[in-house]
Amino acid sequence: MSTAWMSRYAQRTQGVRSSAIRELLKLTERPEVISFAGGLPASDVFPTDRLRAACRKVLEQQPHLALQYGATEGYEPLREMIARHIARYGIKARSENVLITSGSQQALDLIGKLLLNAGDRVLVEAPTYLGALQAFSVYGAGYVSVPSDEDGLRSDLLEAPLRSGPKVMYVLPNFQNPGGTTLSEVRRHQLVLLADQYGIPIIEDDPYGQLRYEGEHLTPLVVLDRENLRRDSGYSIGNVIYLSTFSKILAPGLRLGWIVAPPEVIGKLVQLKQGADLHTSTFVQMVAYEVARDNFLDQHVKLIRRVYRERRDVMLEALTRCFPPELTWTRPMGGLFLWVTLPQGMDAQRLFESALRENVAFVPGDSFYAPNGHQDDARRHLRLNFSAAQPDQIREGIRRLGVAVKRQLDELRALATGAR
Amino acid sequence: MSTAWMSRYAQRTQGVRSSAIRELLKLTERPEVISFAGGLPASDVFPTDRLRAACRKVLEQQPHLALQYGATEGYEPLREMIARHIARYGIKARSENVLITSGSQQALDLIGKLLLNAGDRVLVEAPTYLGALQAFSVYGAGYVSVPSDEDGLRSDLLEAPLRSGPKVMYVLPNFQNPGGTTLSEVRRHQLVLLADQYGIPIIEDDPYGQLRYEGEHLTPLVVLDRENLRRDSGYSIGNVIYLSTFSKILAPGLRLGWIVAPPEVIGKLVQLKQGADLHTSTFVQMVAYEVARDNFLDQHVKLIRRVYRERRDVMLEALTRCFPPELTWTRPMGGLFLWVTLPQGMDAQRLFESALRENVAFVPGDSFYAPNGHQDDARRHLRLNFSAAQPDQIREGIRRLGVAVKRQLDELRALATGAR
Repeated sequence: MSTAWMSRYAQRTQGVRSSAIRELLKLTERPEVISFAGGLPASDVFPTDRLRAACRKVLEQQPHLALQYGATEGYEPLREMIARHIARYGIKARSENVLITSGSQQALDLIGKLLLNAGDRVLVEAPTYLGALQAFSVYGAGYVSVPSDEDGLRSDLLEAPLRSGPKVMYVLPNFQNPGGTTLSEVRRHQLVLLADQYGIPIIEDDPYGQLRYEGEHLTPLVVLDRENLRRDSGYSIGNVIYLSTFSKILAPGLRLGWIVAPPEVIGKLVQLKQGADLHTSTFVQMVAYEVARDNFLDQHVKLIRRVYRERRDVMLEALTRCFPPELTWTRPMGGLFLWVTLPQGMDAQRLFESALRENVAFVPGDSFYAPNGHQDDARRHLRLNFSAAQPDQIREGIRRLGVAVKRQLDELRALATGAR
Repeated sequence: MSTAWMSRYAQRTQGVRSSAIRELLKLTERPEVISFAGGLPASDVFPTDRLRAACRKVLEQQPHLALQYGATEGYEPLREMIARHIARYGIKARSENVLITSGSQQALDLIGKLLLNAGDRVLVEAPTYLGALQAFSVYGAGYVSVPSDEDGLRSDLLEAPLRSGPKVMYVLPNFQNPGGTTLSEVRRHQLVLLADQYGIPIIEDDPYGQLRYEGEHLTPLVVLDRENLRRDSGYSIGNVIYLSTFSKILAPGLRLGWIVAPPEVIGKLVQLKQGADLHTSTFVQMVAYEVARDNFLDQHVKLIRRVYRERRDVMLEALTRCFPPELTWTRPMGGLFLWVTLPQGMDAQRLFESALRENVAFVPGDSFYAPNGHQDDARRHLRLNFSAAQPDQIREGIRRLGVAVKRQLDELRALATGAR
């Protein structure tokens, strides 16, 4: 066989689970299917006119800069803008703390590349973001899973896992993917305190933080970081690597994310990024800068919040109306997802098949658990995305899903009666 | 110190040489310096009008597709266009053989990730492309260096290195960076034959192949591949992974490259790319497609060839006029670079410092050798780029460089006389 060498060489992908979501999404692409499966932002709120104007401006005024090779660190005005932008959340950063990445997926990859070697373990929430598991597993990482509840990661259960010696901790504190939950203020303090005690760095992944639909923004871990406080260096530099992205507040098709970290860490990541893709598209960075400037981004985020809050409310209302009382779900204060828990005996994978027959789709929850990460519980969850579909579609989709749920529940009851 | 954990964890960057070019380029950024150091395409031939029109069209007609998450494999019409485009060189590929990457630097990274583990060795030319060394070293690769001459890699010296068991061979057959040399037809046949005999896959990196200024295009290794011939599957699928890029024929600021490989290999690389950056910007891919379509790319490549051929000729002529006869240089039939060899006793690093005082810059050749790869010889070379500067600048720059060369040569002679 021509690729006999492949079988000998392709170890790197062995630890990586072929993405369940990727395969699932193919099933959900039929036009008659209402899909709550993807993690797609609403494409009807993309600021296309402003993007068009920005492209024109960049290509008229600075084509030689936009189309040429650029600095690995990123386009300097964009780095400065990000440093200013995150100051509102108390994150004190200068442009030298900011590395522009090709989406925050690349941020996860570069951090994995920097920190992880075969056999190292990453402390993660159960459930957690599938893309992070994919990025880290390539470097041979194992996992220590810590359960989460409505208030996020159970910081009261952290000490034993931390004592077991993970190399780094990976947390999504705001409107977590897939849980939709937010780490409480108290737990944030506990988390950074413990991280500091055990000398374990934290990767704070915050793609959704700005998409809060109610309540007050909670302080980022990077701000609470003890090391940061101790040094009092005037800007956030410590034990936490903070990530975010333009994918949810502007457009994912641009592939623009960023890392905030101490300059020493940024320096190492720049070296790795240079080997990984030289730099992120200068053109795209300049276009994003032109779109975001003059406070447009703030205006635009307000629009997104309004649209997504309505869709969340429509979904929550539909769930209450269409789902039997045996099912429970999170009530996210922001973000793109909510997390449904099925009663004992029900199975999300079987429900997925049954739902597809009703032309509605979601992602079964077991995809979001690290290997050996509380898998028993995993098959009793589903992730629902509420950002991509229109309100009417959401109502109809949840109605259909309710039909599938009731059918499986009735079968279960019949089975239980038969067994008696 | 806040980042005490960094010193324990940052092994990944230890094997990676901090990019010499990166540091050098900073020194050459003063406006009064004429730089032959970078590998920059000429920004005055970027097709900015066509790009502006393409942005407008994409954002008017398909904004929801362009700005949304997309397939990891790439934008299907672009994959098909690439498959058609490379058919002219005899490469029979379907879109399923094509993976779009974030520049061909990402192609090198993904291939390194797939194939290389710590301690594996890559057979490379001496000298070779620095970015490949950076990409592979991250995965702990070592190197086996094989000398090259005017006809490229010395295939007559390949057997012993191949017997030593490298995992993969990395070759730039056309207008090599940094040598400017082209692998001869005879050696191409020898190379694929030996690769087949020893079961060693070949990475064929071809960023410059289309930029040929004279002579006939030589058959790509991927076409000559024995496995390919044996299978006669109707399309190129075998022992060779072929890479190319839009960076040199359109614009590097877009960050668009591609890999051509058997579908099984593409499948593995797609898995790795998903973890690395999900996908390359859909928007940029669609814009590149709109720019390139309707044979525009062919027209444009003709323009680039005309401009670069003139610059090459101007540089060759200036070298003949300004350089003492003790120096020799390659006469590239295409690409962006030529390679100067200094006489015994001269040192490119010292010449670099001296040249900077004359406000002219280049890259000393030792950056382009793998560790232990014929380093003695390495300090007697310089790489000159002829694509970025205007003809008048080239003449003036080479005149200045001639001054620095003669100064060092005179010093050497004085020293020799003094010693006598």
